[in-house]
Amino acid sequence: MAKPAGKKNAFYAQSGGVTAVINASACGVIEAARQHRDRIGKVYAGRNGIIGALTEDLIDTSKESARAIAALRHTPSGAFGSCRYKMKSLEANRREYERLIEVFEAHNIGYFFYNGGGDSADTCLKVSQLSRATGYPIQAIHVPKTVDNDLPITDNCPGFGSVAKYIAVSTREASFDVASMAKTSTKIFVLEVMGRHAGWIAAAGGMAATADCDLPIVILFPEVVFNERHFLATVKRKVKEYGYCSIVVSEGVHDKSGKFLADQGLKDAFGHAQLGGVAPVIANLIRDQLGYKYHWAVADYLQRAARHIASKSDVEQAYATGQAAVQMALAGKNSVMPTVKRTSNRPYRWTIGEARLARVANVEKMMPKSFITKDGFGITQRCRTYLEPLIAGEDYPPYGRDGMPKYVQLRNVAVPKKLVDFKL
Amino acid sequence: MAKPAGKKNAFYAQSGGVTAVINASACGVIEAARQHRDRIGKVYAGRNGIIGALTEDLIDTSKESARAIAALRHTPSGAFGSCRYKMKSLEANRREYERLIEVFEAHNIGYFFYNGGGDSADTCLKVSQLSRATGYPIQAIHVPKTVDNDLPITDNCPGFGSVAKYIAVSTREASFDVASMAKTSTKIFVLEVMGRHAGWIAAAGGMAATADCDLPIVILFPEVVFNERHFLATVKRKVKEYGYCSIVVSEGVHDKSGKFLADQGLKDAFGHAQLGGVAPVIANLIRDQLGYKYHWAVADYLQRAARHIASKSDVEQAYATGQAAVQMALAGKNSVMPTVKRTSNRPYRWTIGEARLARVANVEKMMPKSFITKDGFGITQRCRTYLEPLIAGEDYPPYGRDGMPKYVQLRNVAVPKKLVDFKL
Repeated sequence: MAKPAGKKNAFYAQSGGVTAVINASACGVIEAARQHRDRIGKVYAGRNGIIGALTEDLIDTSKESARAIAALRHTPSGAFGSCRYKMKSLEANRREYERLIEVFEAHNIGYFFYNGGGDSADTCLKVSQLSRATGYPIQAIHVPKTVDNDLPITDNCPGFGSVAKYIAVSTREASFDVASMAKTSTKIFVLEVMGRHAGWIAAAGGMAATADCDLPIVILFPEVVFNERHFLATVKRKVKEYGYCSIVVSEGVHDKSGKFLADQGLKDAFGHAQLGGVAPVIANLIRDQLGYKYHWAVADYLQRAARHIASKSDVEQAYATGQAAVQMALAGKNSVMPTVKRTSNRPYRWTIGEARLARVANVEKMMPKSFITKDGFGITQRCRTYLEPLIAGEDYPPYGRDGMPKYVQLRNVAVPKKLVDFKL
Repeated sequence: MAKPAGKKNAFYAQSGGVTAVINASACGVIEAARQHRDRIGKVYAGRNGIIGALTEDLIDTSKESARAIAALRHTPSGAFGSCRYKMKSLEANRREYERLIEVFEAHNIGYFFYNGGGDSADTCLKVSQLSRATGYPIQAIHVPKTVDNDLPITDNCPGFGSVAKYIAVSTREASFDVASMAKTSTKIFVLEVMGRHAGWIAAAGGMAATADCDLPIVILFPEVVFNERHFLATVKRKVKEYGYCSIVVSEGVHDKSGKFLADQGLKDAFGHAQLGGVAPVIANLIRDQLGYKYHWAVADYLQRAARHIASKSDVEQAYATGQAAVQMALAGKNSVMPTVKRTSNRPYRWTIGEARLARVANVEKMMPKSFITKDGFGITQRCRTYLEPLIAGEDYPPYGRDGMPKYVQLRNVAVPKKLVDFKL
């Protein structure tokens, strides 16, 4: 593997939905790069993800203090801005890829660190292919990030463990609450969680109940076709046994025709279509069919932004994969992604592995069938064994005297432009 | 003030919606009582609140270990069960009050500790009045609890500070998230919070933005009549300035006719009435009128059960008011409620005061007008000065190696019944 010629700058960008720990990966990349100033010049971040590269809107991270960069480790969201912008195939829009190379060349960028999910792994792969085709040397390294936990090869994805911890803790807390109220009032609590295609986050709700904390939890997975009769009978049985029941429902739950339950064709008094969530749909169904009083919550962004209850292993792995990406670049690697390799469950041990991007791009890892109980409403011991270390440990952010977490807002100083404007 | 004759047992019950710290008050009551075994016999808890007293369904808390009782301090919800059961007036249902006295007499109960909001302060007052009328001596002490922060005289209510911290932290986190996404995707985040009559909880969302953390937050208070035009113009201006905007909306927001915005007469495809929240109503309005992409969340029980991010001052005050209730009882007091008295803002200092129940019952403390900015969408410096110490400090529960908070589930052993059944 050839080393890049001379001292090159690096480019780093955040892609897609952000997480509680994607900035910990940014911190890992930037701190590792700063430790190798002899080999890596500046780290330029794309303002609003890859759009920042295309429009030559680069942020000079060297303008940020060591303290500000260190604070990224405990700051949720994407500090440089992210974007939802899927680059087309090389054939369909070669111009955009060529523009990336132009921008990299203009700013002497030799390392491309792209922090995202499956789509961005694909972009990363294409950049490295074009680099080979055009002869301009770019090492493209993908840093894994997704709350959906759906990247292949890696044991888990940075970002997921913290959402999982938030959902597990919140489900336990709300279940305690509804248990207190059930005698005369609320008997059902419904929590809607993210995960349109894969039920990893919903599964985390099942972790609320453990051998030493008995709680009635019913999970609705996107992997299991919704069966109204079966569902209602299960809820009724739980209420009979416990007096109450908590339901964790994935936003992606659908019926056998594939129609999302959230899509109920709601109209307001004026006949305008209204978008609700799936939680109120489930709650209304229970009210109508079983007559129980209910409460429902939709966690939405709260779940993926909840740095205040991040998982320690998640924060460590997010940082480590960012750091490893730089080490891989320095080792001359290209078109790869650092992965988390689990080497032991108890005690939990992991190391950093490496995956070829060609094997990562456009492959979605679904939840194994063996993780869902036969009735379709719970998680198996195998699933618990998998999830437990991912939510283990706390990593609290520092708080001010005002009671608020000290999250950093960077200065995000722009790098002077060298090229003509580019229309997206 | 006369001391109760001989050694009497105590009764403790939890009333109404539970909180992250009501069990800390229970812990304060029980631990203080255990320190005075010479004067107080057993503490009996009402199973499911006052219903437990009426139906003679008492829990013998002496069966719980010191460790289990200590764990109540960090366990959210109502460990003995709560209830929504408003006792009628003495005139309308004297029979129920007399039944309470019968049960107290049968179990040699001389102390009545009732942990709740305004309604239960009223019940507590009536019990003490009936005690006087019937000649059976009961000292009725009210322990304040409400997330709504609407009890008079006390500077604040145990339960509120922790919800406020949760909402402030969550609003900050979600605002960071939407800021990252705003360039190409979500520009609006709407968070629905509790507080049907008073905007205290909504106000806490304003604490997300501080002098050292600039965020665009628009608050919709139940105290301010919803003005659609004014609201949309404000949101549009914030998006123009910041690129995005967070909206914290109280469930009690209503128009000038008094109609709740949440009540939009939603019907599903079959014409069935559906209950949604106010958050999707606001989100849909913004989509239709301004065209911005949005996300919305409804925190519901998550906010009041979130012991994992409880405020330290809240936990301390919840415990202290429970403890003080016992001390007041031992000092021969009757028909009173321990209060929190603020003696200094910076540094925050507080002591326990005392209020006559006659001055507490059925009085709702609203948010002062001076706490809301002139435009109706924000909080003033006075409001910040008031709220800041209430959300200050963290008081994390212990976690297991499984990554989950160790909340206690009590054994809740029943006290043998001595009376005939009583129909509610």
